[in-house]
Amino acid sequence: MTTYLRDSLPCQDARVQITVLAGGIGAARFLLGLRTLKESITVIGNTADDIWIHGLRICPDLDTVMYTLGGGISAERGWGRENESFVVKEELAAYEVEPTWFGLGDRDIATHLVRTQALNAGFPLSDVTSALCDRWQPGVRLLPMTDDRVETHVVVDDPERGRVAMHFQEWWIRYRAQLLVHEFAFIGIEEATPAPGVLEAIANADVIVLPPSNPVVSIGTILGVPGIAEALRDAQAPVVGVSPIIGDAPVRGMADACLRTIGVQTTALDVALHYGARASGGLLDAWLVDEVDAAAVAQLQQAGIKAQALPLYMTDVDATAAIARAALDI
Amino acid sequence: MTTYLRDSLPCQDARVQITVLAGGIGAARFLLGLRTLKESITVIGNTADDIWIHGLRICPDLDTVMYTLGGGISAERGWGRENESFVVKEELAAYEVEPTWFGLGDRDIATHLVRTQALNAGFPLSDVTSALCDRWQPGVRLLPMTDDRVETHVVVDDPERGRVAMHFQEWWIRYRAQLLVHEFAFIGIEEATPAPGVLEAIANADVIVLPPSNPVVSIGTILGVPGIAEALRDAQAPVVGVSPIIGDAPVRGMADACLRTIGVQTTALDVALHYGARASGGLLDAWLVDEVDAAAVAQLQQAGIKAQALPLYMTDVDATAAIARAALDI
Repeated sequence: MTTYLRDSLPCQDARVQITVLAGGIGAARFLLGLRTLKESITVIGNTADDIWIHGLRICPDLDTVMYTLGGGISAERGWGRENESFVVKEELAAYEVEPTWFGLGDRDIATHLVRTQALNAGFPLSDVTSALCDRWQPGVRLLPMTDDRVETHVVVDDPERGRVAMHFQEWWIRYRAQLLVHEFAFIGIEEATPAPGVLEAIANADVIVLPPSNPVVSIGTILGVPGIAEALRDAQAPVVGVSPIIGDAPVRGMADACLRTIGVQTTALDVALHYGARASGGLLDAWLVDEVDAAAVAQLQQAGIKAQALPLYMTDVDATAAIARAALDI
Repeated sequence: MTTYLRDSLPCQDARVQITVLAGGIGAARFLLGLRTLKESITVIGNTADDIWIHGLRICPDLDTVMYTLGGGISAERGWGRENESFVVKEELAAYEVEPTWFGLGDRDIATHLVRTQALNAGFPLSDVTSALCDRWQPGVRLLPMTDDRVETHVVVDDPERGRVAMHFQEWWIRYRAQLLVHEFAFIGIEEATPAPGVLEAIANADVIVLPPSNPVVSIGTILGVPGIAEALRDAQAPVVGVSPIIGDAPVRGMADACLRTIGVQTTALDVALHYGARASGGLLDAWLVDEVDAAAVAQLQQAGIKAQALPLYMTDVDATAAIARAALDI
């Protein structure tokens, strides 16, 4: 298992240093466009979706970024591997062991086996992620937000079990986020510390980007690791966000169900105001909204957030590259 | 995870109580025949071949017995699952993680995941094996020889590395037992204790059978667990063995390479004499040899071991049932 010398390399890179806080599918697709600009990209990945399933440590967001940028993602599903089979999953179901609702593919399992064995041997997740990336060569430096265990749980009213807490993944996948969430609990987050390189990547960035990821359970959890939100506020670099909401609905995923819980309306404007303007103690210098949300631009500017309306649907890599270009230029 | 109350059932079973010490393929095929006799069978399985691979605990002999009797074995290979695929193995190779020589099938991996998770949660192997058998319904009570970790290692001259110790499986599978073994080391065996039910199954048996398994690394390791050989010597029941050697060669596998190391010739006669006659402090009351080895019968009788020559090739279940029948009748 090899690791690169991420903290000791002299910074003689003439490229723009971009640091991106990333969730899963939305961030991964955005990064595909951003990567075409040939700048230097560090990705701080959300790990609060991580889960132990059948003794395997699964990091859905890190893997989605790694597979997407490494050319191994299922284009159709957006998660997991291309040409995937589900033989192990079928056999686990035959043993009647729970859970059966998680989409554990055979190719994917190899990744989890390598990771789990390394974690159990004592390697930190950041080293393990780096080793997995040796194979996938994503063209970005991929860091977990923390090496500590952080897990998002939700408190919901289950029709059969009454009010219960369950892992975010169970709510998200098994219940398709259809159960009303009373509360999110980010287990372990107060005690977590940023993984090696995370704070430096924020401090040394030329620009910091919040791609179109879930503001609550992806970007929100990264910002919840003590020290990361502070580092963003203290950073020299501007912080630019790309709205994950277009026309009052999430582009993908079920961010509306998450936003509702924390009392934020599902609009491009409200999400930006939730992050807040940097000038008033918030995080954002600028925010990109879709053309259908152009009306929000004036309100954002008034709130101290530079804003621009442009097509935000990431229909292909060229369209996504244009969004990424706009994020750097604003 | 359920377990059956193996020790607390009152013994009101009118059937013949048969206890079998079992290795892998040879024992499993023998058991297919024995099972047709509709008696009550307890199998004490060898676990010294067990190995950790990619963080998974693999029990080749227990699984071979379980899959064979449960109808899930690959008929062609004799090990692993029917209709098996090797996607995970291929992916692990793409990560360049060792070892790559172990035949880890996708269906098989589900078994290892269930077992590993249960072991890591603190369940003993005997309970885990029982839970796995809930699915496979092998029609026998399958007990590991011990719940403790015992592993056979070999000291060999490796062409590249010089004299090294390696796990039995590496020698057996990767090197096809082609490297000369200087010594076997049965790691952990002195400290191992028989699994729950093992000594009782020997003490309460009506007949104890040594099926055609490897005398060194299968039957030999079971007998090496402190207390098991003694229990056999003290048992009321006769101990009947079926020769794994026909015409001076192992029927299957590479028992000759093992026997050479411990200085025993690869003949039906020598293996029986290696176990020894019970009357002279050994283990055997009777020994079945193939017709081609009929000349050994007189020598065996002279040594105090009842002997009979009959066709020992387990060509199909009927032929195997005839062998099993002869083992009970002798």
